[in-house]
Amino acid sequence: MFFEGSEKKAEVIINDRQLSLLDDVNDEFWARLVSASNARILSCIKNESCKAYLLSESSLFVWHDRFLILTCGVTQLVNSIEFFIHELGINKIEQVTYQRKNEYFSHAQPSCFGDDAKRLAKYVSGKAYRFGPMDSHHNYLFHQDNHFRADINAKSYQLLAYQISRQASALLTTKNLAVERIRDFFCLDEILAGFTIDDFVFQPFGYSLNAIFEDQYLTIHVTPQADSSYVSFEANFDLITLATKILAILQPASFDLLSFNELSFAEKVVDSVPQDYISKSLVSEKLSNGYQVHFANFIREQVAYTRPIFLDIAEENHTL
Amino acid sequence: MFFEGSEKKAEVIINDRQLSLLDDVNDEFWARLVSASNARILSCIKNESCKAYLLSESSLFVWHDRFLILTCGVTQLVNSIEFFIHELGINKIEQVTYQRKNEYFSHAQPSCFGDDAKRLAKYVSGKAYRFGPMDSHHNYLFHQDNHFRADINAKSYQLLAYQISRQASALLTTKNLAVERIRDFFCLDEILAGFTIDDFVFQPFGYSLNAIFEDQYLTIHVTPQADSSYVSFEANFDLITLATKILAILQPASFDLLSFNELSFAEKVVDSVPQDYISKSLVSEKLSNGYQVHFANFIREQVAYTRPIFLDIAEENHTL
Repeated sequence: MFFEGSEKKAEVIINDRQLSLLDDVNDEFWARLVSASNARILSCIKNESCKAYLLSESSLFVWHDRFLILTCGVTQLVNSIEFFIHELGINKIEQVTYQRKNEYFSHAQPSCFGDDAKRLAKYVSGKAYRFGPMDSHHNYLFHQDNHFRADINAKSYQLLAYQISRQASALLTTKNLAVERIRDFFCLDEILAGFTIDDFVFQPFGYSLNAIFEDQYLTIHVTPQADSSYVSFEANFDLITLATKILAILQPASFDLLSFNELSFAEKVVDSVPQDYISKSLVSEKLSNGYQVHFANFIREQVAYTRPIFLDIAEENHTL
Repeated sequence: MFFEGSEKKAEVIINDRQLSLLDDVNDEFWARLVSASNARILSCIKNESCKAYLLSESSLFVWHDRFLILTCGVTQLVNSIEFFIHELGINKIEQVTYQRKNEYFSHAQPSCFGDDAKRLAKYVSGKAYRFGPMDSHHNYLFHQDNHFRADINAKSYQLLAYQISRQASALLTTKNLAVERIRDFFCLDEILAGFTIDDFVFQPFGYSLNAIFEDQYLTIHVTPQADSSYVSFEANFDLITLATKILAILQPASFDLLSFNELSFAEKVVDSVPQDYISKSLVSEKLSNGYQVHFANFIREQVAYTRPIFLDIAEENHTL
């Protein structure tokens, strides 16, 4: 069974100080926004700074002046951005950032990044980049190109782990796994002390977590099946320093680090990434919207020959 | 400008000793077979053992008892195999092997490997494998599963180079480049002494070569544009030993080696691949049709940060 864990991600910031997306916009609006992408809301947690919706495909975070949405699978996130622009009016949009990573199986996607960027460019003039080579892990990024300049303190981090260890995959695909066991596995008590947590175990497997504390968030999404495993972490606190711990837990064959406005990215990477990982790609750029973006992909050397994956031709799936 | 260099490849062997595909089947048949994939024949060279057609998208080789076809771009090679089976009749088919590597941009392909394998499985019962991880370079392989056992001397080799050096890309994208200059660049006089050569420079760039000597062949296909460059070598003589020379010429950031029935693959790789390349994937399998298949992907460590690729949203292409 194959599931495309790779996320599309959008952040939209509004310029209307009279309007709070957190306080003035109701759940029904966000449900409609999410359903525009073909996802749905499962649950919600909230504090005075932030609201976090757990989705059938990933997560939505809402603050007073912005929202952040991540959707995976074959969802079409660009539809949600379009919905928001139509509902609020283009004049209230301060900044749109849209990011999409290369999929495991892009052939099954309803659109490619180029299609998405063209859709967005109908509403906002923007720039598009690819971080990382075409033939390997990469992230596409579209951002609105206007007067907006991001606060240098608006930092965010992603750690994307591929091909986790056989042991990690086995544990995370255990039948009827309790959330507590997954929280223990990720040592979340330690990482998320004081956070409000909302998490969900999917059937037959898969795990999503939202955690908030004041305006801080962490979201984890786990697609654990061996051979196409993928675990993503996204937070607005430092995940590079946490990478040592996360990598020890998951032992992925390959992983990506991505950050916005972490100016010590390179130094932190040197300190936190174990020596047995080799940097395959290192890309950085200061965008015209003020975000300093870093992308890095790491791999481990394979020294022993393994066997290929046998594919069941008759099976109706997209693993082929 | 983007062109999908990644090839699909098929080898079909017949069991009718009264029929020679080389002597008894005319050019018009092969032209129809090729056009079934949406490619066309550009030229042909021939000797007593083998005929080599240069195609608008890659190459076709015909021997007495088999043919080998490689097509790139958005061609649908499985159509050509289906054409052949329909024309000759399924009873004359001894063995079908179909191989497809991961594309740069699979979203633009008319089918995925799963679709192709299902099409083939309607005619011949077979097995399918993936060599290499889903999130990185990999090759899909389908082969008919019957009484056929490949001759242990039926060896073949592929060397696939990605992200060739800036210098190599610059030279190979030079306007109005003469074939002689490309032959010099690849030191073909040395590699192909005694071979009959048929080569072609595409506009605005791109290069294909077929070379035959008795029953030996080499085919080279060059998609030279920076950022999505790809150069493939396929031959039935040892390309692993030649890899040292080819890698020195192209200096790719990443490359794959693949072989059928090279039993000293691992040892030769150790001897021929320069130390600055790291093995990212190593896969091997003895197929039930007798072919011992090896696949290896190598990368170079990137130590300095580079800038992302800027994408022109308005441009009508598939580089996004």
